[in-house]
Amino acid sequence: MLNPNDESVIHSWNQNAQAWIATIENEEIESRKVVTNGAIIDAILSYSPNSILDVGCGEGWLTRELNLRGIEVTGIDGVAVLVENAKAKGGGKFLVLPYEDITTTSFANNRFDAVVCNFSLLGKGSVDNLVNLIPSLLKNNRLLFIQTLHPVTTCNQQPYIDGWRQEFWTGLNSQFPEVTPWYFRKLETWVNLLNSAGFSILECREPIHPQQQKPASIIFVAQYNRIIT
Amino acid sequence: MLNPNDESVIHSWNQNAQAWIATIENEEIESRKVVTNGAIIDAILSYSPNSILDVGCGEGWLTRELNLRGIEVTGIDGVAVLVENAKAKGGGKFLVLPYEDITTTSFANNRFDAVVCNFSLLGKGSVDNLVNLIPSLLKNNRLLFIQTLHPVTTCNQQPYIDGWRQEFWTGLNSQFPEVTPWYFRKLETWVNLLNSAGFSILECREPIHPQQQKPASIIFVAQYNRIIT
Repeated sequence: MLNPNDESVIHSWNQNAQAWIATIENEEIESRKVVTNGAIIDAILSYSPNSILDVGCGEGWLTRELNLRGIEVTGIDGVAVLVENAKAKGGGKFLVLPYEDITTTSFANNRFDAVVCNFSLLGKGSVDNLVNLIPSLLKNNRLLFIQTLHPVTTCNQQPYIDGWRQEFWTGLNSQFPEVTPWYFRKLETWVNLLNSAGFSILECREPIHPQQQKPASIIFVAQYNRIIT
Repeated sequence: MLNPNDESVIHSWNQNAQAWIATIENEEIESRKVVTNGAIIDAILSYSPNSILDVGCGEGWLTRELNLRGIEVTGIDGVAVLVENAKAKGGGKFLVLPYEDITTTSFANNRFDAVVCNFSLLGKGSVDNLVNLIPSLLKNNRLLFIQTLHPVTTCNQQPYIDGWRQEFWTGLNSQFPEVTPWYFRKLETWVNLLNSAGFSILECREPIHPQQQKPASIIFVAQYNRIIT
């Protein structure tokens, strides 16, 4: 593996794009099929946004699902192969847009009721920057949905400290050419990142895997611009 | 053990009061000595409240520590033996006041900048009621500090589901006559309880045990009455 950093995250996704597309098409990640896909859709629908930006949309499954439910959805991703695949499948607007190229004016004429990041916040500095930029992409409901790995079930035997971890993609049918680095954040760090970007946490959901009886993920529902009275 | 419920929590503390006093005086709970006592004091001091209500003060160590730092502190507890011991030690105002006897007018003429619950929210309905009452005890800064067991380190092999658990008090020198029931809450449940009571979570701290490298607790710092703009 390359040194784990924000660049090698992108590098690995470019290398793994075809394997990822096959894995999602074949519904090979059991926790997604059984728990987390439904959980993020339910969370979003319970707030009834009219428009949403799917950040890190990959091959576009969530964009399509939300589009089917009448929401105006745009999916963006930094990996061109994934976005091409999403466009070929249709069912939403898709753009190649790496996180580092998003600016406060990227969607100036077309802001969204909500932004969703579904297991797509894997970097370190790139994620900190992105979360701080998200308010500029929002209007009206000002909602941010983040689904990410749950510390209870991902920390395991390792120290509970922010830092780079590795995804080896074991147990899947497709051959992933690259190990994927991802940056583990403590709950404290997620909460502080959201607060420092001006978000208040409205809700936190912990979808439980029905067999394992452990959280398959954590979902933060946050709202921008509450004012302290 | 009696059936685990809000009444048996109180029953066990009445039975265990002397053992608890000895355990705290001898600093036998290592995680308190090494991590969590300092963590709750640091969290409170970083917000500079002038007055504070220590709910579930026990034999009063935290009340005394905050009093020493110039904060006007009142400690309350439902267990008379613990409060008598706290009064004998001095260093703060102490009252016997069971959670179920707290009302919106209990401190009507003397509300507090902050309330702290340090490992003292062990019941089920009694805790839900208490958290919803706390806003009526607050003025000014409107802060609530809760330190409690961290799900990462307390769930272990058990299902990650809200429910009654048992503390057997093993590994301590004093003989505890009763097993103590306590009600495990998921993070989701804590966050939703705070939000539904009108609190916004300002911060979440996860004090790490220096040897185990795991969270020794979770601290929620919440503020009442933010208004959505």
